[in-house]
Amino acid sequence: MHGNGLIAVDWGTTNRRIFVLGVDGSVEQREADARGVTAIAADGFPAEMAELRARFGDHPLLLAGMIGSTRGWKEAPYVACPVTLPQLSERMLWVEPGRTAIVPGACIAGGELVDVMRGEEVQVFGAVAAGLIEPDGLLCHPGTHAKWVRLEAGAITGFRTFMTGELFALLREHSILSAQMIGDSSDCSAFREGVRRSLDHPGALTSHLFGTRARILLGKLKEEDAASYVSGLLIGADVATGLDLGPGSVGLIGAPALTGLYAAALDESGRSHQEVDGEEAFVAGARALVETFA
Amino acid sequence: MHGNGLIAVDWGTTNRRIFVLGVDGSVEQREADARGVTAIAADGFPAEMAELRARFGDHPLLLAGMIGSTRGWKEAPYVACPVTLPQLSERMLWVEPGRTAIVPGACIAGGELVDVMRGEEVQVFGAVAAGLIEPDGLLCHPGTHAKWVRLEAGAITGFRTFMTGELFALLREHSILSAQMIGDSSDCSAFREGVRRSLDHPGALTSHLFGTRARILLGKLKEEDAASYVSGLLIGADVATGLDLGPGSVGLIGAPALTGLYAAALDESGRSHQEVDGEEAFVAGARALVETFA
Repeated sequence: MHGNGLIAVDWGTTNRRIFVLGVDGSVEQREADARGVTAIAADGFPAEMAELRARFGDHPLLLAGMIGSTRGWKEAPYVACPVTLPQLSERMLWVEPGRTAIVPGACIAGGELVDVMRGEEVQVFGAVAAGLIEPDGLLCHPGTHAKWVRLEAGAITGFRTFMTGELFALLREHSILSAQMIGDSSDCSAFREGVRRSLDHPGALTSHLFGTRARILLGKLKEEDAASYVSGLLIGADVATGLDLGPGSVGLIGAPALTGLYAAALDESGRSHQEVDGEEAFVAGARALVETFA
Repeated sequence: MHGNGLIAVDWGTTNRRIFVLGVDGSVEQREADARGVTAIAADGFPAEMAELRARFGDHPLLLAGMIGSTRGWKEAPYVACPVTLPQLSERMLWVEPGRTAIVPGACIAGGELVDVMRGEEVQVFGAVAAGLIEPDGLLCHPGTHAKWVRLEAGAITGFRTFMTGELFALLREHSILSAQMIGDSSDCSAFREGVRRSLDHPGALTSHLFGTRARILLGKLKEEDAASYVSGLLIGADVATGLDLGPGSVGLIGAPALTGLYAAALDESGRSHQEVDGEEAFVAGARALVETFA
């Protein structure tokens, strides 16, 4: 661990999570707030860093996520897959040497299907470094833009992003289904029915989504179950395609409420899985990155 | 044709199209406005009908579409498939006998996959009655909620709805892709690339949608082509599943700008097609329905 402690920030578009690590690597403080990159003016980042150090101590800063994107503070160019933890560390952008580093994202740049990630790679490498998941296998990181990741000998060799969480939010807030999609999704029989329908026929997703309305009109679905049914359709389609990335048990990394829904969907698919808390994985990743440069 | 002419209205959720037919069945006037059912107060429909007759003449009124839904004036219950033109006519809701009729919608109520339509059935039967399409085959009616319809001996024996147009609008107006999805979709190389990607792998739609952003970030897609690419992905997924309804040439019924995009997508799939103007099909359907009760 770094000799002076560390402030590690998982800095997203609309939110950020801050972890203050002690000299021994333990988490001394953790906070979350809505100061994602879009909440900060383009010239406001240096003051933001000073403010973090004033609040949490004059420690080195390790910044991951959208902070390194074109919408963030400074662009840390993507590292192309396959990528390992040491490669990610070597390609960190040092805003101030030894003091302030931005972790680059990962990309798939060759071939027909290209993709990008920023932030999840720290959780993935952290989960491996902490022994929470095996260095070979399949991972899923649910969320607004859910990631499915293939790991081989500790390297990220491929991944795919799905617009799962964003589509759920769009449908709930702005669509013909909005009036019925009250509340959050939960692992109920309507959720599982949606999952099975998409596992059986993922290509018919946009038809099954409209079918939510038809099922309510024809008395096949209760209005109060609409959000769970739609969530099941979206997560089922996501799982059906994500599983194509490889065999074996799936490590689910993220917030427990979300990984629980994916665990239920994986149960319907017959694939085994284990859940890993995303915050613990991020902290482990920050520790591992600091060790490679300390 | 009815001895007194006819006012036929294709009455949707947000828009309506009005056709005044003469004694010989010819279209004497046609208008379109934004007085869809949601623009009219629940108790405002009788006054609306009086206003239509004051403007267009004291003729019988034939009303189709969402006007017969629970959100419209009076509910005309769905007729379950298989449904023929005479059955639709028999099940019309007569608000005032011989003067004011609401055409019911069609539904698929049995089995696992249920579905509903209101309004498109008039265009489908009209296109057959006018000899614009064969009484056996596959039809597609693009739109906010695109319909694929199976016709057998002039009866609608099955159909499926896809949330294609609505998802396009949600993504363009409210998503992470909004800033790039400028303008409308057109049949360009980016549109065709999106179509092919979805035809090859319709189950990965939500991943390909996110891929739009990755392609722009990595220089594989120009921002100005984003709307066409997304449209190609959505229409391609729609076509890939719609074609499963049956063999043969596809009749495309609707507005020419939209049927043209579907024609391009069907070209990519290798399936033959012919385009039919949706307004002409509706007028032909109104004529045919009037003949069955006149």
